[in-house]
Amino acid sequence: MEAKAESVPTYSMGNLTYEVPVTLFVENRRRLLAELKRFAPEAAESSIIFLEGGVPVNHYNTDTEYPFKQEPFFHWIFGVTEPNFYGAIDVDTEKSYLFYPKPTETDVIWLGKLPKKKDFAKKYLVDYVYYTHEMATTLTSLNRDRLHVLSGKNTDSDLLFSTPDTCNIYDFTQTVDHSKLYPILVELRVIKTPLEVDVIRYACEISSEAHKYVMKSIKPGMYEYQAEAAFMYYVYKIGGCRAAAYTCICASGNNGSVLHYGHAAAPNDKRINDGDLCLFDMGASYYGYASDITVTFPINGKFTDKQRIIYTIVFQARDVVFKHLAPGISWISLHEHAIREMLRYMKYELNLLNLEIDDMIEAGLGAVFQPHGLGHLLGIDVHDVGGYTNNTPQRPTKRGFNTLRTVRKLEPGMVVTVEPGCYFIDEVLDDAFNDPLLKAFLTDEINTFRGIGGVRIEDVVLVTESGYEILSHLPRTIDEIECFMSTGKLEERGKDILKNGI
Amino acid sequence: MEAKAESVPTYSMGNLTYEVPVTLFVENRRRLLAELKRFAPEAAESSIIFLEGGVPVNHYNTDTEYPFKQEPFFHWIFGVTEPNFYGAIDVDTEKSYLFYPKPTETDVIWLGKLPKKKDFAKKYLVDYVYYTHEMATTLTSLNRDRLHVLSGKNTDSDLLFSTPDTCNIYDFTQTVDHSKLYPILVELRVIKTPLEVDVIRYACEISSEAHKYVMKSIKPGMYEYQAEAAFMYYVYKIGGCRAAAYTCICASGNNGSVLHYGHAAAPNDKRINDGDLCLFDMGASYYGYASDITVTFPINGKFTDKQRIIYTIVFQARDVVFKHLAPGISWISLHEHAIREMLRYMKYELNLLNLEIDDMIEAGLGAVFQPHGLGHLLGIDVHDVGGYTNNTPQRPTKRGFNTLRTVRKLEPGMVVTVEPGCYFIDEVLDDAFNDPLLKAFLTDEINTFRGIGGVRIEDVVLVTESGYEILSHLPRTIDEIECFMSTGKLEERGKDILKNGI
Repeated sequence: MEAKAESVPTYSMGNLTYEVPVTLFVENRRRLLAELKRFAPEAAESSIIFLEGGVPVNHYNTDTEYPFKQEPFFHWIFGVTEPNFYGAIDVDTEKSYLFYPKPTETDVIWLGKLPKKKDFAKKYLVDYVYYTHEMATTLTSLNRDRLHVLSGKNTDSDLLFSTPDTCNIYDFTQTVDHSKLYPILVELRVIKTPLEVDVIRYACEISSEAHKYVMKSIKPGMYEYQAEAAFMYYVYKIGGCRAAAYTCICASGNNGSVLHYGHAAAPNDKRINDGDLCLFDMGASYYGYASDITVTFPINGKFTDKQRIIYTIVFQARDVVFKHLAPGISWISLHEHAIREMLRYMKYELNLLNLEIDDMIEAGLGAVFQPHGLGHLLGIDVHDVGGYTNNTPQRPTKRGFNTLRTVRKLEPGMVVTVEPGCYFIDEVLDDAFNDPLLKAFLTDEINTFRGIGGVRIEDVVLVTESGYEILSHLPRTIDEIECFMSTGKLEERGKDILKNGI
Repeated sequence: MEAKAESVPTYSMGNLTYEVPVTLFVENRRRLLAELKRFAPEAAESSIIFLEGGVPVNHYNTDTEYPFKQEPFFHWIFGVTEPNFYGAIDVDTEKSYLFYPKPTETDVIWLGKLPKKKDFAKKYLVDYVYYTHEMATTLTSLNRDRLHVLSGKNTDSDLLFSTPDTCNIYDFTQTVDHSKLYPILVELRVIKTPLEVDVIRYACEISSEAHKYVMKSIKPGMYEYQAEAAFMYYVYKIGGCRAAAYTCICASGNNGSVLHYGHAAAPNDKRINDGDLCLFDMGASYYGYASDITVTFPINGKFTDKQRIIYTIVFQARDVVFKHLAPGISWISLHEHAIREMLRYMKYELNLLNLEIDDMIEAGLGAVFQPHGLGHLLGIDVHDVGGYTNNTPQRPTKRGFNTLRTVRKLEPGMVVTVEPGCYFIDEVLDDAFNDPLLKAFLTDEINTFRGIGGVRIEDVVLVTESGYEILSHLPRTIDEIECFMSTGKLEERGKDILKNGI
C-alpha cells in the first residue's frame, strides 16, 4: 500500500502519546497472505480467511463488563479496538473485509455515534466494510471453495481456541479448514515487524519511566498496592495506557518469593517495612501490545548485605545472558548459562553451595532458586504465542528446564524477556533439604536468607541481526539503583506533566 | 454470633482504609435462612443452600486473566475474595461451609502460601471449611433431601444465571430446587443492612473525594482519559479500591450527551477544550460494594450562560426529587416529579417549550432531554438486583417511563442513585423535530443548545425511616462548584497523602 506519510491513519490517545501507523496491520495481512500461499498453496486457492473479533464479557449475569480486550489474533490482523467485529480476507483478490453490527436506534444515546462504514474502512485501511447481517451474503457472493478459520492451542495456558464449524452468523457452506490459520499466525507473530517493535518499544519506555516514578516516590510504611496505583497512574496519564499487560506484582519482603504475587487472593496488600526489598513486576499495554518489566530495589534506598548478595547473584546471571544473547543461540542454552552462572557464583564467590556445578545442573538444583524459565516471547500477549509448536523442539522434561516457556533458537525480530531470578521460598527449600540428592549441595548458610523474598531483574529485549537491543531502561547495577534512589531524576515527560495539576 | 469487638475479623486494605467487619456476611446468612424458612417453610426443611463462587476468566485462550471479580450473590453470602470457592449452608443446623481447591505443589511457588482450612474459617466466620474434592462426601453425609441452587434473570442485563442440575463437582442426587434461592436473595439484597450501608458509604466518600481531586486538577488542554487516570489513582492509593464499579465515563463537550461514553469504542480520548462542560461519571468499588457518582462542571471553572441554564434545569429537578424522596413513595412518581420540574422550568422560566406540561408528559417529551430513568438501586452491583420482580409492578411501556430500572416503592434500607440529567443529543432532537406530536412542544431556541453536551447530577442516597441520607458529598450548586474550582480545598486525607511522595 502506497500512501503518503501524512495520509496514513494512526492510532493514538492524543498528542501526548505514540502514533501507531495503521499500516502495521496492512503489513501483517500482507505477511499472512504470502505465508498462507507459500505454506499451503493448494488450500490457499479460492479461499477466504475468516476471523471473529473479541466480544464483551459480562460480570456473571449482571450488566457490567470486564474491560474490553480485543482477541489477540484478530488484533494482529486488523488492529480493531471495538468489540463485536468480524473480519475476512479474500485470499485470491487480497481484499480485506470488516463486519460490524448495525447500530440500533438507542445505540446513539448510550454509546454515541459510531463511525460509518467508510469511516471504518479509512480508520483500519481495509477494502470493504459491511454490517454483520450482510456478512453471509457478502462472503457467499465471493464464491470461494474454502474458509480458513482459527483453531489451536496456546502452549502457555493449554487452552484451546476453537471456531465452530457451523455458525449461525455466517452460513458459508463450503469446506471449513481449521488446520492452517492458527499455526501460520503463531509463526508470524513470533517475528515482529519494525512497526510492531515500535509499539512494544513505546510500551516499554512508558513502563520503564513509570517504574522509576514508583521507585522515587514509594516509601517505607506505604502499602504495596500504592505502588500499583502509582504505576497505573503514570502509564495511563502520561502514556495513554488504560490497561496493564498482566496483573501488577508489587511484592515486598518475603512476598518477593511468590512469583505471581498480586492476584486476587494476595492483592498487594502488605505494608512495606523499612528494610524490605521490593520486587515490582509491572508492564503497560498500548494498542494491544505488551511490556513486561521487573525491578528489584530496597525500599529505603540502601541494599543490606544479604540483599546485595542476592541481587549480585541475579545480576551476574543477567550479565552472562547478555554476553551470549544473539541470533542463532537456543533459548535453552541461554537459560543454562544463566543458571550455571548463578550456581557458580553461589558456590565459588559465596560458599553457599557444595559439590560440582555439572552435578547441580543434572540434579535440577537451579529450580530450587529460580523455579521459572529465563523468559518468554513477548508481543500482543505478555507470554506471546509460539513458545512451542510442531516445528520447534518439545518442552523439556528435565527438572530445572521443564518450566521454560520456549526452547526456540533466537531469530532477528523476536522480542523476549530476560528475567533471571533468585528466590528463597520456604517450602521449596524445605523440600530440597529433605531431598537427599539436593541436600548434598546445600550449606546451612542458605537458611539465613529465608524471609528475604527474592530478586528478579527483567528486561524486554529485541533480537537484531547483529545482536540485541534492550527495550527497557532502568537503573540496573546496585550503584545505579542506590544512586537513582537518592539523587536520580525522572524523565522530563513525567516531571513536566506531573507537576502541572494531577 | 457473639464475638468480642476486638476479635471480629475484618476486611481492609490496611490501616489507611475502612475495616469491614466480616459479621456483615454472618448477618446476611442469618437473614437468608430466616427468609427461606418464612417464604418456603416446606422447601426449607431438610435442605442445603449451595452456591458456586466466581471463577477467573481468561483473555480468550491466553494465560492472562481479566481482573477477578467475585460472583455478586456469593459475595453477599460469604464475602470471599478468592476465586474458585464453593459455599453451602445446612438449613437445618444453620451451619455454613466453604470449599476450596486443595493447593497443588507448585501453587506455593506461583501464588504463595494459601491460608489453611482453619484460617479460612476464621477469616470468613464460617463453621466448616473443606477442600473441593471433599465437597460431595461432606454434603452427602448431611443427609438432606433438597439442594437450593441459584437460577434466575437479571432485569438490567436480561441475562440468566443458571446452575446446572448435575455437576461433576458435586454429585448430590436429591432434589435440586432452582426456584427459591434467586428471588429470595434478590429481595434481601434490595434492603441493605447497616453494615452494608457502611461499606457503600465508604466507597461513596472515597469516590466523592476523588471527584473533587479530579475537579481541582484537570485543566483545559488535558485529555479526558487523564481524568480517569487521576480518579482511579485516588480511589486506589488513598482508598484501597482496586477496581471501579463500572467503566469510567469522562465526557467533555458534546461527549456529555453520550450516556455511556468511555467504553472501548469511545475510550475517553478527546482533548478537553477551554469552555467545555465536563460530565464525569465514576464510582469506586470497595470489598465488592459499589458507588456511582456524577459531577458536571465547566473545565475552566466558570459556567457559560448556556451551561448555567442546563445545569439549573437539572439542579431544579434534583431539588424537587429531594423534596419528595421518602419511604413509601414510588420511584415512578419521583421520576415524574423530576421530569415535570425539568419541563416546567424549561417552559415557564426559559421559554424553551410550548403547550402544556401534562401533554408533554403524555407525549413522552421528557425522554427527548433525559432518555434514562431517574436512577437505580445500588449495592454490590452498580445497577443492583431487584429492580423488577414477580412482586413488583412491571416495567412501564410508556415513552419516558420505559427506561426506568425500577418502579418500586421506596423502603428504609434501600440505596438508590438520584441522577436527573438533561442532554442535547443531535439524533434525538432531529427525531423529535421530525415527529409532528413532539415538534409542537419545541421552540427553535432548543437548537442553540446543540453541541453543548449534557448535564447529569448523580448522588447515592440511602432511604431511612425518616427520609433519606445522601452518601455522596460534592459541591452541587453553581456557586459551590465555581467557588470550589477557584478556592476550594481537598480533604485532609487526600492532601496529606498526596503531598508525601506519590
